[in-house]
Amino acid sequence: MIKETHIENIHRRLLDRIEILGAISSSSECLTRVFLSKEMDIASRLIQSWMKTAGLVSNIDPFQNVVGSWPSNTARAPSIHIGSHYDTVVDAGKYDGALGVLLSIAAIELLQAEGYTPNRHINALAFCDEEGVRYQTTFLGSSLLCGTFDPTTLEKIDSNGIDMRSTLKARGFDSDGIAKTAPIIQKDDVFLEAHIEQGPVLEANGHALGIVTGIAAQSRIGITVTGKAGHAGTTPHELRNDALTCAAEMVLAVERFAAERPAVKATVGKLDVSPNSSNAIPGKVYFSIDFRAAHLRRLKALKIELLEEIESIAKRRSIKIDKQTFQETSHADCDPEIRKLLSRAVAANASAASELFSGAGHDAMKVAETCRIGMLFVRCRDGLSHHPDEFVESSDILVALRTLADMIKQVDQNAFPDS
Amino acid sequence: MIKETHIENIHRRLLDRIEILGAISSSSECLTRVFLSKEMDIASRLIQSWMKTAGLVSNIDPFQNVVGSWPSNTARAPSIHIGSHYDTVVDAGKYDGALGVLLSIAAIELLQAEGYTPNRHINALAFCDEEGVRYQTTFLGSSLLCGTFDPTTLEKIDSNGIDMRSTLKARGFDSDGIAKTAPIIQKDDVFLEAHIEQGPVLEANGHALGIVTGIAAQSRIGITVTGKAGHAGTTPHELRNDALTCAAEMVLAVERFAAERPAVKATVGKLDVSPNSSNAIPGKVYFSIDFRAAHLRRLKALKIELLEEIESIAKRRSIKIDKQTFQETSHADCDPEIRKLLSRAVAANASAASELFSGAGHDAMKVAETCRIGMLFVRCRDGLSHHPDEFVESSDILVALRTLADMIKQVDQNAFPDS
Repeated sequence: MIKETHIENIHRRLLDRIEILGAISSSSECLTRVFLSKEMDIASRLIQSWMKTAGLVSNIDPFQNVVGSWPSNTARAPSIHIGSHYDTVVDAGKYDGALGVLLSIAAIELLQAEGYTPNRHINALAFCDEEGVRYQTTFLGSSLLCGTFDPTTLEKIDSNGIDMRSTLKARGFDSDGIAKTAPIIQKDDVFLEAHIEQGPVLEANGHALGIVTGIAAQSRIGITVTGKAGHAGTTPHELRNDALTCAAEMVLAVERFAAERPAVKATVGKLDVSPNSSNAIPGKVYFSIDFRAAHLRRLKALKIELLEEIESIAKRRSIKIDKQTFQETSHADCDPEIRKLLSRAVAANASAASELFSGAGHDAMKVAETCRIGMLFVRCRDGLSHHPDEFVESSDILVALRTLADMIKQVDQNAFPDS
Repeated sequence: MIKETHIENIHRRLLDRIEILGAISSSSECLTRVFLSKEMDIASRLIQSWMKTAGLVSNIDPFQNVVGSWPSNTARAPSIHIGSHYDTVVDAGKYDGALGVLLSIAAIELLQAEGYTPNRHINALAFCDEEGVRYQTTFLGSSLLCGTFDPTTLEKIDSNGIDMRSTLKARGFDSDGIAKTAPIIQKDDVFLEAHIEQGPVLEANGHALGIVTGIAAQSRIGITVTGKAGHAGTTPHELRNDALTCAAEMVLAVERFAAERPAVKATVGKLDVSPNSSNAIPGKVYFSIDFRAAHLRRLKALKIELLEEIESIAKRRSIKIDKQTFQETSHADCDPEIRKLLSRAVAANASAASELFSGAGHDAMKVAETCRIGMLFVRCRDGLSHHPDEFVESSDILVALRTLADMIKQVDQNAFPDS
């Protein structure tokens, strides 16, 4: 059994590393760290040095993915990968992604301090791009390590008009070689990710930890409502075709639709009015619907239902609408066997945990296409993320650390049926 | 009795003048003519030349108001003023304001062709600023001619940061003298204004003309709705404080409030969402309410009622709101005696007319503070105004011309009780 003072040291070091990593930013005013930047180089070398301190063999690939390996004595054993991403959004918090990366290293340190000998290879992973800020395309790091990176992505350009291929070349890497990199994550492996919840459920339930059941399927829909602009002072109400009052009714229908159905989320986040002048009846409104459900098939069926409701509001008001689906991504299930093991680990270290569904996307979603995944959520204050006020209690980090270490052992000692 | 060919000539000339005036713009791409501009100088000299052609003694004042006088033989007789404005909004139509100015000159031409001898002085007026585009303050022309111009307005600055005083000085005028100009419109006078309806009522009723009963009181209110931003994928619906769904409910309450009350108009024309990102629950929404009713007292009472309703929506949703009234202007009544005379003139020239209330503001509203007013509305296509597609049928202009000429005679021959 490991001494409490050892755990305390590892925990304190982890808290320090969160602060250090959170200070490496392209801006002096806020935390911003994007794919293939100098700050990512600095951060990757730091993460590599912490992996080396933990006794791991570490490597940084051309995409800035950092991999630290603790090899098994059985060379042909499958691997357990533990990790998350270390890129950030613009003006980010210091826990989103980074906490999962640093917990992985710390959990390995804990197992080593305990004198544990793994049956499988254990890898700590730090993915280079989950947020997709630079090229508006996400999961670049995890897809490369899974061997599922789409090489056409290399043609994407950033806001300065520079494509990914040229950016890699300027960094001294051959982009043709990229797609041929041997994948580190294989189909018989297991991937575990710890991440802040980015929502308020754990806080509301009074639980430090959450066991993720799956990651939602998502649709992004755009609705353009075309009424008729007019003078606010002279057009009688019975002769109006107000695009905004029509859109308002739709916004409320979207809210009601989701509130009436468990595990469905539907949000109008963006809404633009035209001409948007105080004395003009709005002639046109564009709004977005962010629509999420546990399964892609259910999402698609519900989308038809929701759009029918929106259509009928437009018809009743004699208003024209255009609908467009911009993006549709499938759900990912967390492996039931791993969820069971995770429950056991949680039970040993936390009094209780919530089972919850992830509405937000994560690297684990990409990795799920390749191998079994498990996800642990850690409570964050006010459910806040993607914001400098993002915060996780030190005591919650400690219980997450103990649980993740236990979790690795549970998985390492479990015989999974053939995939 | 005047010959039909004379009327035809006057009508045709009037149609030509609408086109000519509509071509004088500061932009080669659209019609824009704002206060104290070079284009207004050109337009004012054109209007003056047309007044002279009609045998009027004409003058352009430092504000670019154009006055054309047809004096009575009785020097101390009161005056009948007929006119409208000839400034425009940005990307305007060619009828708003201009039609009233040109109808005034043409109506006088018609009376002269008929050999009419007026009892009162008859003045055609072309006001320099009704739209308020340049200094964000309206009725500059009519207030100067009424002697009610507020000299503090001279300190107002335009979008180039230049105040009205400096603009006048650069044009060679002493701004101190401006406020001391002897008013042309006096309390025993009568003011008649013809203007496009800027609304769809006449078209819906199948009437070329409308007799205006009064001009609405108006309030402009700003509402800031403060909820709580959050991640669209992770925040359960029961834990949300969505500022946009709350605002949507308010927008519908505003619509319903007006629709349930005759002669009340309430419009949300401007609505801004923050952060306005498709995957973020809106944390803040600002929206405007343009609120109009026949009488200021009623408007104020209704405003309290409407704001209480909005307040109760916010309370039910646990959302904070801030309310601000930006502007509140009183109503103006059209003189009942003049409305009767106008009805008679309409009956003689058009088969029928609508009685209607003006939701839009007009120079007549300002002049009503000084003397009796009457207003004639002319049908415009689709109720459209402040738009390049603004259009009035030539046949409607003809009936308006005949009616306005008759109207001047009716007023000229009527003995009004002492004001």
